[in-house]
Amino acid sequence: MNNFIYHNPTKLVFGRGQIARLPKLIPADKRIMITFGGGSVKSNGVYDQVVRALEGRDFVEFWGIEPNPSVETLRKAIALGKEQKVDFLLAVGGGSVIDGTKLIAAGLLYDGDAWEIVLRGRAEKTVPLATVLTISATGSEMNSGAVISRYETREKYPFSGSYPLFSILDPEVLYSLPKRQVACGLSDTFVHVLEQYLTTPGQSRLMDRWAEGILHTVSEIAPEALSDNPDYDVMSEYMLSATLALNDMIRMGVREDWATHMIGHEITALHGLTHGATLAIVINGTLRVLREQKRGKLLQYGERIWGITGGTEEERIDRTIAANEAFFRSLGLSTRLSEEGIGEQTIAEVERRFNAGGWNYGEEGNVDGAMARRILEACL
Amino acid sequence: MNNFIYHNPTKLVFGRGQIARLPKLIPADKRIMITFGGGSVKSNGVYDQVVRALEGRDFVEFWGIEPNPSVETLRKAIALGKEQKVDFLLAVGGGSVIDGTKLIAAGLLYDGDAWEIVLRGRAEKTVPLATVLTISATGSEMNSGAVISRYETREKYPFSGSYPLFSILDPEVLYSLPKRQVACGLSDTFVHVLEQYLTTPGQSRLMDRWAEGILHTVSEIAPEALSDNPDYDVMSEYMLSATLALNDMIRMGVREDWATHMIGHEITALHGLTHGATLAIVINGTLRVLREQKRGKLLQYGERIWGITGGTEEERIDRTIAANEAFFRSLGLSTRLSEEGIGEQTIAEVERRFNAGGWNYGEEGNVDGAMARRILEACL
Repeated sequence: MNNFIYHNPTKLVFGRGQIARLPKLIPADKRIMITFGGGSVKSNGVYDQVVRALEGRDFVEFWGIEPNPSVETLRKAIALGKEQKVDFLLAVGGGSVIDGTKLIAAGLLYDGDAWEIVLRGRAEKTVPLATVLTISATGSEMNSGAVISRYETREKYPFSGSYPLFSILDPEVLYSLPKRQVACGLSDTFVHVLEQYLTTPGQSRLMDRWAEGILHTVSEIAPEALSDNPDYDVMSEYMLSATLALNDMIRMGVREDWATHMIGHEITALHGLTHGATLAIVINGTLRVLREQKRGKLLQYGERIWGITGGTEEERIDRTIAANEAFFRSLGLSTRLSEEGIGEQTIAEVERRFNAGGWNYGEEGNVDGAMARRILEACL
Repeated sequence: MNNFIYHNPTKLVFGRGQIARLPKLIPADKRIMITFGGGSVKSNGVYDQVVRALEGRDFVEFWGIEPNPSVETLRKAIALGKEQKVDFLLAVGGGSVIDGTKLIAAGLLYDGDAWEIVLRGRAEKTVPLATVLTISATGSEMNSGAVISRYETREKYPFSGSYPLFSILDPEVLYSLPKRQVACGLSDTFVHVLEQYLTTPGQSRLMDRWAEGILHTVSEIAPEALSDNPDYDVMSEYMLSATLALNDMIRMGVREDWATHMIGHEITALHGLTHGATLAIVINGTLRVLREQKRGKLLQYGERIWGITGGTEEERIDRTIAANEAFFRSLGLSTRLSEEGIGEQTIAEVERRFNAGGWNYGEEGNVDGAMARRILEACL
């Protein structure tokens, strides 16, 4: 097991009706800015719950943080927040609203342009932020990471901000999500786990078990979560799984990969394809191309999650990679680039960006431009 | 899934050589009291590492917090701490030293007698505390609980204090532990998980999987951890399992039991038998007597942890309870009260205390004096 430091101070407030706790959770003297995406929180009742809970409190609203939040939009929020002397941020939305709000939290205490914070990769000072989660997928509600896009240049990069002070997770708010969003959320959750699990075997038995615990849960509940009438318990498992998949708890003392994510970010930046949908494609290429490097864990993954035990090792790995792809197809997502009309032109641009940036991602640092091309070609 | 709030702010600093980080972890202006148990930290090198790391810093030492820490000893530490104007506590030891230090942390800011805090069940204000863990068992290094004894009256009760600011876990410090201490630590860890897992089935698939993940890990590594030359990875799994077994992470949204612990505390209070050793006995009585109530989870536990699948449900439950007892015997611990010379006299006194206190423990609140008697009789 590798040395590690784990420190996640976010308070998780989970369950039905928990939005009503907002006034107790936000210090009374704070000047709050509430950040939103589009209008879905108005139709599903979340906006009303939030505003009712904060009646009599001092807040301004900022609307319009888009999917794949852009620095262009966030600059406007930062300007408004500075003008209004905001010192507490409440993100009401999914991963995009929360990620964007992490940049606002840093930007409010920064004199330069917010894109500089993204390029530097780390926020120095931030105002406190909290969240009311409305889409389970990115885990941003209980981690310090955020991914910001710059539309002008079609770039999309992660940076490290601050952990939310608290996050309210009410599974009932997920009922009204379109099925495709649930599918992308389940895909994102599953791949978050694979990025921390499908690496070198034998690093931590316990972390392996916890990662597998999320994979088991997500694969078991996925059909019910995508049904016409998912029940509360199913949505609870989905919501909790998504949060625990990327809140530092399953990466204690183990190596991580993230090459699939970095390639997926480029596909989103270039095509606008939803993050979870890019992962459902790219992960299959990653497993095919890095099959030897991930051999031990692929065998373990196949046996423990998909029950694949018979045959030679090569056959078991083949079946495991097929079972993995079948899972993403069962979510109703594409697993091939060609299904999304993505081909050589995009592959060439991703390769160019990896080479220009001198990027080497993945557990072994061997996913460079040429390897990214091979991975994408393997999921054409 | 039940509503819940999870909030564990302890920073976990895990791995070889991490004690050297102490000066960066403790704010420079603090007047520190370091608390110890007996002298084992002097023979295993931990004391030297701590003192070397804190060279030039302002600290006093308090020695002699005993196993099952007593309010009688802790009153002396509180008096010394007040006299020395201590405002930071560093517990260097196992669960007893840490539990005791949680009471010191509360007692330093309390005017009355410290036993009042224990009886009230909750500390109001505390000075910050941190830990260097030397025995993995209780999980106290990453939770807010503590159990304090009063020798004068042979009483032993839990109270809720504060989470450590940070805890340093270096698996190398576990090499020098006597095998019986490792066995009791593994027993304590295992039963912590069972108290949060062997309740009502179907509450959370994910929490079930995480609990089972610790049970798998502990049962797999136990023989190696008890061997003459356990390696670093094995001790890492043991240390991490013990911490994650009782740091709130596996109890999100699920019911808990704790009747076995409450009965075990009485056995320790009356006989001085080590906590983990009492649990290795009492848990078997609990499972026999509450067999119907725990039916669904016993079947799941048997199948997923011990691979018990054939036969009727009654046979599977019989075999599961037997496998559970065999595990504790494999640690070299007694699983019957009679092996420790404990009999009717103690059972009568435990029953009397439960009745006198009006205690009703367990998931269903049905473990009263009469039920405690049945449980103890079932492990004679």
